[in-house]
Amino acid sequence: MRYLMTFSYDGSGYKGYQKQPRVKTIQGEIEKALKTVSNQNIDIHASGRTDAKVHAISQKAHFDLDMDITPVKLKEALNSLLPSDIYIKQIEEVSDLFHARFNVKAKEYIYKINMGEYNPIEHKYVYQYNKKLDVVEMERALKYLEGTHNFKSFSKTLEDKEDYTRTIVQANLIRDMKNVNSIVFSFLGTGFLRYMVRNMMGTLIEIGEGKRKSEDIIDILKKEDRKYAGKTASPEGLYLKDVFY
Amino acid sequence: MRYLMTFSYDGSGYKGYQKQPRVKTIQGEIEKALKTVSNQNIDIHASGRTDAKVHAISQKAHFDLDMDITPVKLKEALNSLLPSDIYIKQIEEVSDLFHARFNVKAKEYIYKINMGEYNPIEHKYVYQYNKKLDVVEMERALKYLEGTHNFKSFSKTLEDKEDYTRTIVQANLIRDMKNVNSIVFSFLGTGFLRYMVRNMMGTLIEIGEGKRKSEDIIDILKKEDRKYAGKTASPEGLYLKDVFY
Repeated sequence: MRYLMTFSYDGSGYKGYQKQPRVKTIQGEIEKALKTVSNQNIDIHASGRTDAKVHAISQKAHFDLDMDITPVKLKEALNSLLPSDIYIKQIEEVSDLFHARFNVKAKEYIYKINMGEYNPIEHKYVYQYNKKLDVVEMERALKYLEGTHNFKSFSKTLEDKEDYTRTIVQANLIRDMKNVNSIVFSFLGTGFLRYMVRNMMGTLIEIGEGKRKSEDIIDILKKEDRKYAGKTASPEGLYLKDVFY
Repeated sequence: MRYLMTFSYDGSGYKGYQKQPRVKTIQGEIEKALKTVSNQNIDIHASGRTDAKVHAISQKAHFDLDMDITPVKLKEALNSLLPSDIYIKQIEEVSDLFHARFNVKAKEYIYKINMGEYNPIEHKYVYQYNKKLDVVEMERALKYLEGTHNFKSFSKTLEDKEDYTRTIVQANLIRDMKNVNSIVFSFLGTGFLRYMVRNMMGTLIEIGEGKRKSEDIIDILKKEDRKYAGKTASPEGLYLKDVFY
């Protein structure tokens, strides 16, 4: 039986999603819990990895398991074993043909920035920029990122892919009515290259600092070369918000 | 010279505010940083302690220091030495007669509850009740807590004080327009006994569960006996929000 699992995690204590020997990872913790419950070695296949310190509100993964247990009971058993910073929100039965990575239709990421005073309570959950940014110019730049483009300039250096074309369906800036210094960027896209959101965010921050103009995005995209985009923004502010099939 | 310091901290990694031998505390970390900066043993005197895992948005403390340094430079020096979960927001010179505890006019505490699904990203910052509560009845109960009362029923068991009389100037429930499951309680008072906010919150939660009525608060206050109030609510949701002089 194939199952699709929806889960949330605080990435701050982990070396990323993907399993690695002798290192604490999200995948490693979930597979350990699955082994305890089922007494089998189960591989889980996520919609994609997230980097160290990146959070997930709704990550998805599938796995195959032959066991006489309902999805609800399995969810409860796993949650009772998992550390308090990982939580299984739902488990459902899916077709044997379903694949959590290959069947992704869209993903949504959000990135949180605090432009106000350093906040020690949220420093692992919101990027502490702690200075003013030109939010209007950043918002303009988002519109140049929307659409279907070759995103090679925003990909990981030295990563060789055949196809760097991705579609950003919507890129928005969300303001907080109660706190003018708190801004959230959201990116809904058909797929994302490694480091793509953080590289776009690093470039957007340079636009907010006045070092670049919003229209520079057009040129950066055209260059298809990582060295023309900005720095990789730090991971703390990034959340995988949802995965759509 | 006497200084008043305003600081914020994430209490989740600490055994409370107050210094204890061989244990990580907020006071211990700040005094260690002050020693490095000044090469003197400085005692800091806070507005009051906070328990293990409790956070502070604006805690205040005074200390005496003879050193040729501006408050701004001193703040920068301390922040460069302190761990990322403690932050000095301001240092100002005050009169030698000022005392951060004895001169307190009022304090504000807030307590955050999540009535929705368990959230692993915020579990150290918002109490994960994860079930519905009768919020209207809890809000009614807050009004019985307002005013000047003997709060012995809400104090720490076996703590012997001469005077249990305190005034709660205002007790409010703050709803989150974007998330019906997120509620915040705020308590503004002239002073608080140890565990008082957590004991009031534990009792309020039992009211929200329907185990008690809002009017029961009147009776609990009259008894002047800890055993009539509810359980001590867990520390994660509690924040010292501000101290007023």
